[in-house]
Amino acid sequence: MERITATYYIETPYEVAKAAAVLAGEQSSGTFVAVPNETEELKQRFAARVESIEHLQTVWEPAIPGARSKDGNYRRAIVKVSWSIENFGYNLPVLISTLQGNLYEITQFTGLKLMDIDFPESFVKHYAGAKFGVAGCRELTKVYERPLIGTIIKPSIGMSPEQTARIVKTLAEAGIDFVKDDELMSSAANSQFEDRLNAVMNVINANADKTGKKVMYAFNISGETDEMHDRYEKIVNAGGTCAMVSINTVGMSATKKICDQGALAIHGHRNGWGMMNRHPLLGIDFKAYQKLWRLVGVDQLHVNGIQNKFWETDDSVVNSIQSLKEPLFQHKNILPVVSSGQWGGQAFETYRRTQTVDLLYMAGGGIMAHPMGAAAGVVALQQAWKATVDGLTLDEARKLYTEFDKAAEKFGK
Amino acid sequence: MERITATYYIETPYEVAKAAAVLAGEQSSGTFVAVPNETEELKQRFAARVESIEHLQTVWEPAIPGARSKDGNYRRAIVKVSWSIENFGYNLPVLISTLQGNLYEITQFTGLKLMDIDFPESFVKHYAGAKFGVAGCRELTKVYERPLIGTIIKPSIGMSPEQTARIVKTLAEAGIDFVKDDELMSSAANSQFEDRLNAVMNVINANADKTGKKVMYAFNISGETDEMHDRYEKIVNAGGTCAMVSINTVGMSATKKICDQGALAIHGHRNGWGMMNRHPLLGIDFKAYQKLWRLVGVDQLHVNGIQNKFWETDDSVVNSIQSLKEPLFQHKNILPVVSSGQWGGQAFETYRRTQTVDLLYMAGGGIMAHPMGAAAGVVALQQAWKATVDGLTLDEARKLYTEFDKAAEKFGK
Repeated sequence: MERITATYYIETPYEVAKAAAVLAGEQSSGTFVAVPNETEELKQRFAARVESIEHLQTVWEPAIPGARSKDGNYRRAIVKVSWSIENFGYNLPVLISTLQGNLYEITQFTGLKLMDIDFPESFVKHYAGAKFGVAGCRELTKVYERPLIGTIIKPSIGMSPEQTARIVKTLAEAGIDFVKDDELMSSAANSQFEDRLNAVMNVINANADKTGKKVMYAFNISGETDEMHDRYEKIVNAGGTCAMVSINTVGMSATKKICDQGALAIHGHRNGWGMMNRHPLLGIDFKAYQKLWRLVGVDQLHVNGIQNKFWETDDSVVNSIQSLKEPLFQHKNILPVVSSGQWGGQAFETYRRTQTVDLLYMAGGGIMAHPMGAAAGVVALQQAWKATVDGLTLDEARKLYTEFDKAAEKFGK
Repeated sequence: MERITATYYIETPYEVAKAAAVLAGEQSSGTFVAVPNETEELKQRFAARVESIEHLQTVWEPAIPGARSKDGNYRRAIVKVSWSIENFGYNLPVLISTLQGNLYEITQFTGLKLMDIDFPESFVKHYAGAKFGVAGCRELTKVYERPLIGTIIKPSIGMSPEQTARIVKTLAEAGIDFVKDDELMSSAANSQFEDRLNAVMNVINANADKTGKKVMYAFNISGETDEMHDRYEKIVNAGGTCAMVSINTVGMSATKKICDQGALAIHGHRNGWGMMNRHPLLGIDFKAYQKLWRLVGVDQLHVNGIQNKFWETDDSVVNSIQSLKEPLFQHKNILPVVSSGQWGGQAFETYRRTQTVDLLYMAGGGIMAHPMGAAAGVVALQQAWKATVDGLTLDEARKLYTEFDKAAEKFGK
């Protein structure tokens, strides 16, 4: 029977092989004592299997609290564990409860991070994956051979639907491809969802009638399930093309159901991600995380940005983008959403390191606070990407393009 | 306008007041630069507010990677931040995106944990909360003035529906109150959900006809939304009284919809919890977490157990039980689910420290692997709780009760 293999980065005060065996036992047929009915035949079919152990360094302080080491050593290793797909069937929540459930609490580990998951093709095939993906989002926005340029409405919260629509009008006229609600904004007291939807879509539809290009607006539908589906329908009826879901806070089951509808591109916002990833030896790595959400079927997924305003290193951001470029069997590739403190200057390094324009490249303040106004902010981003793909340096681009030069003057270091 | 206040335990290489201001800004109307439209009036109404700062110790190593400190100091503090409920309305996912979103990634923090949330009564009243809670679960099982005694089917995975039903029969005849699927088990290749449901409910219904007492069985319905609702209906139709949801992996939106059905008690399993809580300066404390899930409406919530097989300290477990005993306005109190390496011996310390019998007290291996068989395992747990409420010590209980004595012989240290 085919198996799913998880790769963990672990730290343990015990022998690595023993700790790995506890993990495999706890997360399949075992418990803290031998129990009747745990037969050899049952274990053969359902027990998780430690596939490999790669020893890394030994340290003298535990990464996170857990069992004290008798010899003062905490051993790090890469451990691969596999499960038969018979254990869970095609059930992602149960798969996650198995690969990421109680094992974080096992006292035999003073650090445990799920680094990657290898799925057999048959398992991936069961899931439709992204309905739109990179190609579909390009078709919807008519943007080819360069990144989609996007922005987040800022201030995140507090503006009226009319104020929001006015900004969208300016941005649309400047040629923006994509705009999104902030994840803090769904239906605030002075900007009810439906009012904002209607005000914004009036502007977008009018602009599309004129130019033939429809701006993709990701309305934040995150909420309870009925409300999300209700808002989803309203977006479809208003002629919108995208809905945003805060995937960690909404959760996997409800997000899957939204993705399954298939009428809108789904913008997957990963807010809350830091809690699961920031510690080097706790949680989940993006490489594993993105596979799960590609199975769920989001079309766009946040990856942070180069030289961002958060803690994450550029290497980590680059790895995230690369992981989304790797194929997942027959699934459509999805758009990495680059954001956080972006203003165009980072386009050069982003392109140099990833060699891709299959990105949704977003700037919030970097567009909204452009010294010549938001429209110039959009133009500056387009200039930055054109320049980098043309092989220019940042300084060369500044000389060539006024709007980009002004952006660099304000936002550059 | 009424406000929701979050309490954070933070560590920062910057001045605490400055870091707190960044948090409040990022999670409301601010971004990395001032933007047009961020008016004083808007800020007054929608900006998050730093309510208080309590300085704690300074350390010389950051708890988790982030900004380096210029002066080598990392300052710890308790910070309270409040938001107007106008920002999110009655939308728990957006509330969580606000209180637990991007802020974990802010470089100004080298540690951040959400410790507590204070809701105004009006906000809590909007949510029905648990349909059954402690009192409802007692009525369904006819257990009063002592903990509900429960067990987890072990081996967790691999047994056929008939094997599972046979064990349930033994347990039911021994007087067990509650049985649950393991979170690893939902619909495995050799134990399809419906087959297991029917086999188990046949036994439980037959036993109830004979004795007048219906064992509560928590069938694990975790999965995609349609499948969960389908399985929920099947449980109702088969005469079941409870469904289990792995709340972290299913997610808040889909779990809420299940809770809203109101026909079954919902067993909230927190597997994956370690990822969000194990680090002292990252994630969320149980005190905040349980309030969110009480709003969602689970009837039972896992709290681990005294002297458990995981890393968690007894103090932490006791705090969790106490937090579930605290009232949440008009909401029904819910059942703390005590489990992990329990065999009855821990009943004494559990009662001594919590002074409550409003518990669902579960032993898996501790019942299944009892030397005289599973039925004796149930009896041993009942004896342990009777003894502790009667004021006996563990040793006195051993002298009085054979089954408990045998359990102590095998499982005691």
